Amino acid sequence: MKGEKALPPKGTRDFGPEVMAKRNWIIDRIREGYRKFGFSELQTPAMENLSVLLGKYGLEGDKLIFKILNSGQYLGKDKDDGISSSDLERGESAVTKKISEKGLRYDLTVPFARYVAANHNELSFPFKRHQIQPVWRADRPQKGRFREFWQCDADTVGSSSLFSDAELIIMAHEILFSLGIDNFRFLINHRRILEGVGELCAPNLELSQFTGTLDKLDKIGKEKVFEQLQLQGVEQQGIDFLDRYLDFGDMGEIEQVFEDKSPESALAAGIQDLKRIISLVENGSQNSRLVFDPSLARGLDYYTGSIFEIVIPDSGIGSICGGGRYDDLTGIFGVSGIPGVGLSFGLDRLYEYFESKNLFPENTSGSPEFIVCHVDRGSMEGAWTLWTKLSQSGISGFVYPESAKIKKQFQYADRNNIQFVIVVGPDEIEQERYSLKDLRSGEQFSFSTEELIEKIHG
Amino acid sequence: MKGEKALPPKGTRDFGPEVMAKRNWIIDRIREGYRKFGFSELQTPAMENLSVLLGKYGLEGDKLIFKILNSGQYLGKDKDDGISSSDLERGESAVTKKISEKGLRYDLTVPFARYVAANHNELSFPFKRHQIQPVWRADRPQKGRFREFWQCDADTVGSSSLFSDAELIIMAHEILFSLGIDNFRFLINHRRILEGVGELCAPNLELSQFTGTLDKLDKIGKEKVFEQLQLQGVEQQGIDFLDRYLDFGDMGEIEQVFEDKSPESALAAGIQDLKRIISLVENGSQNSRLVFDPSLARGLDYYTGSIFEIVIPDSGIGSICGGGRYDDLTGIFGVSGIPGVGLSFGLDRLYEYFESKNLFPENTSGSPEFIVCHVDRGSMEGAWTLWTKLSQSGISGFVYPESAKIKKQFQYADRNNIQFVIVVGPDEIEQERYSLKDLRSGEQFSFSTEELIEKIHG
Repeated sequence: MKGEKALPPKGTRDFGPEVMAKRNWIIDRIREGYRKFGFSELQTPAMENLSVLLGKYGLEGDKLIFKILNSGQYLGKDKDDGISSSDLERGESAVTKKISEKGLRYDLTVPFARYVAANHNELSFPFKRHQIQPVWRADRPQKGRFREFWQCDADTVGSSSLFSDAELIIMAHEILFSLGIDNFRFLINHRRILEGVGELCAPNLELSQFTGTLDKLDKIGKEKVFEQLQLQGVEQQGIDFLDRYLDFGDMGEIEQVFEDKSPESALAAGIQDLKRIISLVENGSQNSRLVFDPSLARGLDYYTGSIFEIVIPDSGIGSICGGGRYDDLTGIFGVSGIPGVGLSFGLDRLYEYFESKNLFPENTSGSPEFIVCHVDRGSMEGAWTLWTKLSQSGISGFVYPESAKIKKQFQYADRNNIQFVIVVGPDEIEQERYSLKDLRSGEQFSFSTEELIEKIHG
Repeated sequence: MKGEKALPPKGTRDFGPEVMAKRNWIIDRIREGYRKFGFSELQTPAMENLSVLLGKYGLEGDKLIFKILNSGQYLGKDKDDGISSSDLERGESAVTKKISEKGLRYDLTVPFARYVAANHNELSFPFKRHQIQPVWRADRPQKGRFREFWQCDADTVGSSSLFSDAELIIMAHEILFSLGIDNFRFLINHRRILEGVGELCAPNLELSQFTGTLDKLDKIGKEKVFEQLQLQGVEQQGIDFLDRYLDFGDMGEIEQVFEDKSPESALAAGIQDLKRIISLVENGSQNSRLVFDPSLARGLDYYTGSIFEIVIPDSGIGSICGGGRYDDLTGIFGVSGIPGVGLSFGLDRLYEYFESKNLFPENTSGSPEFIVCHVDRGSMEGAWTLWTKLSQSGISGFVYPESAKIKKQFQYADRNNIQFVIVVGPDEIEQERYSLKDLRSGEQFSFSTEELIEKIHG
């Protein structure tokens, strides 16, 4: 069982003290931002019924849901209840149905929608919630892709007000500033603009087909996207339109070029919404990083209004946040008429970014402030008494619990990133003055108990 | 899908904003205590390999582990890899082996042991960690028993020093005081005392058999325990000894009665350890709630030294915390020589206790401080501008995002426990003075922006 067998499952990770302190440093700032803007916390269970999860993420998504074996006698008490040889013939999907009713959540949106549907009579709308929890996907593990990872969601539901879009955008700015990130670009587009462009450029395609192809721009480039559209029957004139559209730097240009072509169109409505959102954001923030990105499509059909993504140029990572407006959160659960807007920060990507650029501040460690060491076994009792006094004053620390060479105790303090080392020996106990070493500055003092407290309290 | 189908799986719960705020209030205090005493945070994945989990919790425990279906083609590419009809004949355990390699963690101790075993070369001992995460058990759900619940563990490993036992005990006191609980009893006993008593009373039994029977005292009472011991072949003289032992109020009495019978025994060693721990705790805390409890046995064979449980008399709930010393954390993972001492608070029980006794403070809600309302659609822009100024000053709140009757907006503020309601109308915008209502005190003011900030900052 030694060695590799004591590792966590493939694609999952242990987070030791140092990593946890850094992750918490990020989470605390995200959560603080969410709370400041009035998004209260929700947590849902790790497990959901498969009836809730399946069919929400496409066929590919269904396969990536971790399914949980029914507990107890899942083969049934009677042999006929269980897996039959014809189930075995038909394969996994037939067998799974017989033996699994629950799965691990795949994202935070579907459990949130389920929660809102189950509680819509008690909730007061607009309902603003945040949720910071792990999600699980049975993806093939690879660098930067995990089977357990954290999402940090915030949504306002039960309102179609563009105030809510703008508020989320301002909040995301403020969170990133509080993390010390200010070189980000907040890319924004609008589904109805894409719809309008789609009507003009590719009238033969469904919107989801059009945006689905457009969404590949980042990965395969403009030429390949055009080729695919041509294969899908889009005419040359449409491709030319699209080419021009993709080069637009601001919405004014779109209006100039397209407005007369469709004055009452989805395009006009999208442009109007987006202008309003941008104006609200710029009214509310002197440091807007909003950039209109005509190519931003976001794959999910779910979105119906504004769509956005936050990227850090030259960071080597994808978007660190994405979101948008949708007009029906809970229809899948039989409750209609609940629109909303939301965003999600990816904790693991942010962590990777901070780590790779060495951006974490020095003092995230969460280490205790002091440790009491002792020069010999006989001084341990005195060390204990001193510790209890320091601890009762509210400062954080402990006594090195074993009798050990003082050098070893100092090494321990150093490895655990503890700033203040107090040394207790027979002389110190007699004189009630203790030696204090500040491992950061290298300074050394001789202090009474009161002076120690004052020094460490800072 | 409406109604019951939108509920979380049986035995699991959604935690809405109000419940989350209260749970966080408890967790924050536990975590603050753990950190103050130098226990840094560890998190392990929800999933563990079954090779790690199985065999650690007894046969009954193995059944209660939630098992996860292997992802992808778990029946194998070749039909012979998968479940055979003879597997089906043999039942669940044979089938499970073929299709499941991972399970959800059942407690935090085994994942912690796995982590220490995997990282023992890099960790600096004594290693002090805390871990606050959910665990999952496929128990039959019933009142107060859930399939997903939270444990809050703290352990010091790599040290056999009794300082560590005493430190944990003082920490638990401090955490409970910080939660406003001071009517608890901290029951303590020692495995070696039980071993000594077992040698004297029931020399024919294994220690685990003896403590296993003793552990039923709470549930079935003294007479029934004695009956069972007699059936196990314990002699009347032994039962009489045990009867006397169980009535002891302090360790002094045990020494008087038993000392001469076994001067060099496990009993003497246990008494010595326990006296030392109690003296260290009383040296370190003026408010010790330590009570020697001769009947405390704790079922797990795992413990080898001090054992303890915290109970609140007349609370109607079981113990809210338990723990003890063990001499081999990681032997099961092939790494020996790592003793330790740990404890675990049960978050869900603490929550139930606070809720049932109405002990939560009023201000756990985590609601934002203010909301900006508007008397008509035309005032929404002005409300937005005012909000951006207030928000930039650091106070938390938002604009009611929809155009609505002012009464509805006040009701919303009230239901969401928001203290300050600011009302913006055409007059307020012109005069740049806004009406502020304090929903807690009922007071009403007319304030400039600066005065608003000052008032709300408090």
